[in-house]
Amino acid sequence: MIVILRLFHRVPRDERATSHVALAARAFGAKGMVYCGMKDPGLEKSVERMEREWGGKFFIEYTEDWKRTLREYRKNDFEIVHLTMYGERLGKDVNIRDNALVVVGSEQVPIEMYRLADRNISVTAQPHSEIAALAVFLDRAMEGRELSEEFDVSNFQNAKRKIVPMKMGKKVVRG
Amino acid sequence: MIVILRLFHRVPRDERATSHVALAARAFGAKGMVYCGMKDPGLEKSVERMEREWGGKFFIEYTEDWKRTLREYRKNDFEIVHLTMYGERLGKDVNIRDNALVVVGSEQVPIEMYRLADRNISVTAQPHSEIAALAVFLDRAMEGRELSEEFDVSNFQNAKRKIVPMKMGKKVVRG
Repeated sequence: MIVILRLFHRVPRDERATSHVALAARAFGAKGMVYCGMKDPGLEKSVERMEREWGGKFFIEYTEDWKRTLREYRKNDFEIVHLTMYGERLGKDVNIRDNALVVVGSEQVPIEMYRLADRNISVTAQPHSEIAALAVFLDRAMEGRELSEEFDVSNFQNAKRKIVPMKMGKKVVRG
Repeated sequence: MIVILRLFHRVPRDERATSHVALAARAFGAKGMVYCGMKDPGLEKSVERMEREWGGKFFIEYTEDWKRTLREYRKNDFEIVHLTMYGERLGKDVNIRDNALVVVGSEQVPIEMYRLADRNISVTAQPHSEIAALAVFLDRAMEGRELSEEFDVSNFQNAKRKIVPMKMGKKVVRG
């Protein structure tokens, strides 16, 4: 399973960006997100609401101590993958272990994070968006499975609303 | 060439999200972004500053009339691709024409947009992030070329700063 660790969330500055991180993580198959920085009940509620509405079992958790969280996941045999503009180039095949904690920062990630990670990976060696980097990384880690209908069915059960993909128009069915 | 059309930018609500759209578009090989909604000189300056610092020729342009912009691009033989949670499922191969205008909304895209598009494409039929959807779409449209070193060299010339990908640490060389 893949879990996201979002570093140093700030309110109100990162409200939408962190929410995008959580939504992209969920849509691309991650099982949950842990975040540190400022505790944000609004963020947690919006993720939980999304979950009730659109199904699945994505969790959101706050941690006061991100290094302890890293150690705990490592102890449980999670590979620590840090997405950063400075890391190794992302390749065609991601080849992560079955369990991975994918770390995305906001601004100013301390150099310590680079040492604590098993891998520091850069998605294009250009400055851009942690949301974009995470989505492309997960798409490759999932080998595109998250785009298939089977994935929808297995990952987003108990949805109150479900989109029916179509060429033109908006179609939502209710569960 | 790929150009992005960002619909209905609002200040201050969308400042960071639209900036993420522009940065991801640039990093993944788009040639520029047109946006409508509220004109935002701060956004334009930050994209231009990025460009001076990190190289390339990414343009940013404001339009008062997004439908006119669509018509102009169509006349110039651009395929109009609208990314939306409601469209057809994105496949492994994107197969877009050489010239494409990729449209990403913020909230409440009018139904007219669905009719004006040549294709409405959904990246996962789940609600998530237009930044994530755009990045995955461009990654597939580019077939991963944007991750190679050759792409860096040809697309981001005249950079004042350039990141050297590495396993541990941050390395930036100055041009």
